[in-house]
Amino acid sequence: MKVNGQAMRTIWVGEDGETVLTIDQTRLPHRFEIIRLATLDDAARAIRTMQVRGAPLIGATAAYGVCLALRADASDQALEHACSVLLATRPTAVNLRWALDEMLAAVRNRPRGERVAAAYARAAQICDEDVAINAAIGRHGLALIAVIAGRKPPGEPVHVLTHCNAGWLATVGWGTATAPIYMAHERGLPVHVWVDETRPRNQGAALTAWELGHHGVSHTVIADNAAGHLMQRGLVDLVIVGADRVTARGDVCNKIGTYLKALAACDTGVPFYVALPSPTIDFTIDDGVGVPIEQRGPEEVTMMTGLTADGRLETVRIVPEGSAVANYA
Amino acid sequence: MKVNGQAMRTIWVGEDGETVLTIDQTRLPHRFEIIRLATLDDAARAIRTMQVRGAPLIGATAAYGVCLALRADASDQALEHACSVLLATRPTAVNLRWALDEMLAAVRNRPRGERVAAAYARAAQICDEDVAINAAIGRHGLALIAVIAGRKPPGEPVHVLTHCNAGWLATVGWGTATAPIYMAHERGLPVHVWVDETRPRNQGAALTAWELGHHGVSHTVIADNAAGHLMQRGLVDLVIVGADRVTARGDVCNKIGTYLKALAACDTGVPFYVALPSPTIDFTIDDGVGVPIEQRGPEEVTMMTGLTADGRLETVRIVPEGSAVANYA
Repeated sequence: MKVNGQAMRTIWVGEDGETVLTIDQTRLPHRFEIIRLATLDDAARAIRTMQVRGAPLIGATAAYGVCLALRADASDQALEHACSVLLATRPTAVNLRWALDEMLAAVRNRPRGERVAAAYARAAQICDEDVAINAAIGRHGLALIAVIAGRKPPGEPVHVLTHCNAGWLATVGWGTATAPIYMAHERGLPVHVWVDETRPRNQGAALTAWELGHHGVSHTVIADNAAGHLMQRGLVDLVIVGADRVTARGDVCNKIGTYLKALAACDTGVPFYVALPSPTIDFTIDDGVGVPIEQRGPEEVTMMTGLTADGRLETVRIVPEGSAVANYA
Repeated sequence: MKVNGQAMRTIWVGEDGETVLTIDQTRLPHRFEIIRLATLDDAARAIRTMQVRGAPLIGATAAYGVCLALRADASDQALEHACSVLLATRPTAVNLRWALDEMLAAVRNRPRGERVAAAYARAAQICDEDVAINAAIGRHGLALIAVIAGRKPPGEPVHVLTHCNAGWLATVGWGTATAPIYMAHERGLPVHVWVDETRPRNQGAALTAWELGHHGVSHTVIADNAAGHLMQRGLVDLVIVGADRVTARGDVCNKIGTYLKALAACDTGVPFYVALPSPTIDFTIDDGVGVPIEQRGPEEVTMMTGLTADGRLETVRIVPEGSAVANYA
C-alpha cells in the first residue's frame, strides 16, 4: 500500500541483508518512523510494546526475530530460547506460535552453518505467503463488494464498517479486512469505510484511518458506540473485521468490541464477514469463550496520547485518579 | 451525594436568592468548579456547551433559565423568547420541553409583578420533584439489587454495569441509573459498578467514575468495547442505564452505544433496566428509531482533553488530520 505516495510493505530486510526494518506503530498517526531490529530482544520488544501488532505482522516479526537470534548464536539452545522469548510476548495471537513452529521446522535439522540463511529464507517466504494470502482474501471480498455495488445507483459508495486495524499495517501487505476494500478501490468501485475508533488503543482512529487516508480511500472515523446506530439507520452495507484466532468450529476471537458489532449486524441484518488467513485458525480448540483473553495495563484506558495544537506529542490522563480500571484486550 | 465529603445538590440558588449555581461538568473530573448563572444567556450556554447535561438537570437548568430571563424582563414576549432560546439548546432531551411547559403554565396567567417569584417557586419545586422521583427510582432499583445480593455468598458484591452518566450529576440529586446503586451502598449492600467510558465525551470515565469515587462506591472503568465481554464471562449481574427519551411504546433513546450494550445483555441473559423519571416519557411518539438523533461537532471524536503529568489541562488530537469524522450522540 502507499505511504506518502510510495508503495511499501510493513516489514523488510535492510540493505545489510540482516537487520529488519518496520514501522513504529505506537507513533502513528502523528509520526511516521521506521525502526531497525538488530537483535532477538529488539524483535521481542517490538511485539510486546505493540510497535508491531496484528496477527500476521506479529508472525512475520517473530520469524525475523528467530533469524536475528540465530545470527548471534545458531545453537539448539539459542533457537529454543528465542522461540520461548518470542512466544511469551503476546498470548492471544495464534500466528505467533504458527510462525515459530515454521521457523523451527525450517532450521532445526540443519547444520549450524546453514541455519541463518535457511531462517532468513523461510522468514521471507512467510512474508510473501502473507501477501499472497491477503491478495486472495481481497479477491474473495471484492466479489462481495461488487455484488452490493451492482445493486446501488452508479457512483453510490458501498459502505463498509471495520473494527480495529486488520489493515495493511497488521500484515505484510494488503491487510486482511482491508484487502477487499483496497482491491475495490483499485478497480474503481466507489467504497467508503466507517472506521471504529477502537478504544482503548484507538487502532481504528490511529492506524486504519491513517493507512486508508494515505492510500486515498474515503473513510469516516466514528466512536465505537456509534456502530450499532449506523446499522440501525441502514448506513452500513457490510462489516468486515479481522481475527486474532478462530477456533475449529468457527468461533472468532478478535479485538475487544467485535462481539458488540456482530450482535448489531445480526440484529439489523447487515452481513458480517471475518477476513482471515489460514494460520489464524486454531484447530486445537472448539470453544472461543474458553480462549484466554489478554488483559493489558490500565494506562491504555486512563491515558491518551495525541498531538497538541503546537505539534508536540503529549499524554493526558482522562480517568480520575483513584478509579480502578480493567483493560480486556 | 457527597463531594469532598460534603452532601450537596447539583443546582441551587445562591445567597442572593436569584443567581443560580451549578458545577461546570466540562471541567470534571480534573477540576471541580462552581459556575454562577445570572442571565438567560448564561443558562442557555451552560446547557448548549454541556456545562450541565443529563435530561433532568437540563430541565432544572432551563427552569431557572426562565427565572433569570424574567428577572430582566417579565413581559409575555420575554417569556416566549426565553422558552424558544432554551428549547433550541439540545434537541433530544424531552425534559427540556417538559420543564419549559411547566414554567409557562406557572407564570403565563399571572400579573408581571408576581411572575419572578412564581417562576423561582416552580423551578424549586421541579428540583425537589426530581430528587423525590429519583429517590423513588432508587427504592425500586434497590429491591432488584437486594434480590441478586441475596443469591450471592455474603460479602460478594453485586456487579452493576452502567453507560454514560445517568448519575447524580445528570439530575438534581441521587441520579436515575445510580439511585439504586447509592441506596444499596447506603444500606450496606456490597455493590460494584462497571463504568463504561462512554466515548466520545467520556461521561462514564469523567463523570460517573468521579461521582462514585467521591461518594465512596467501588467501581471500575472499562472501554465501551469491553461491556459485552464482561457479560459473556458472567461478570455483570445487571445493567442499569438512564434515558434521554422513552416513547409511548417503550422504545428507549439514550446515549450512543446503549443499543450495543442492550444487545449484549439480551444475548447473554443479563437483566437490563432503564431508570427514568416520568417526564422522560414522550407520549406523542411510538417509534424510537424515528426520533432525531443529535449529531455533534467532530472535535468530540478527534480531540481529547485530560491532565498532563505536570497538572495542566491539555487537549490533544487523536485522529489523523484529513480523516472525516461523524459524531452521532
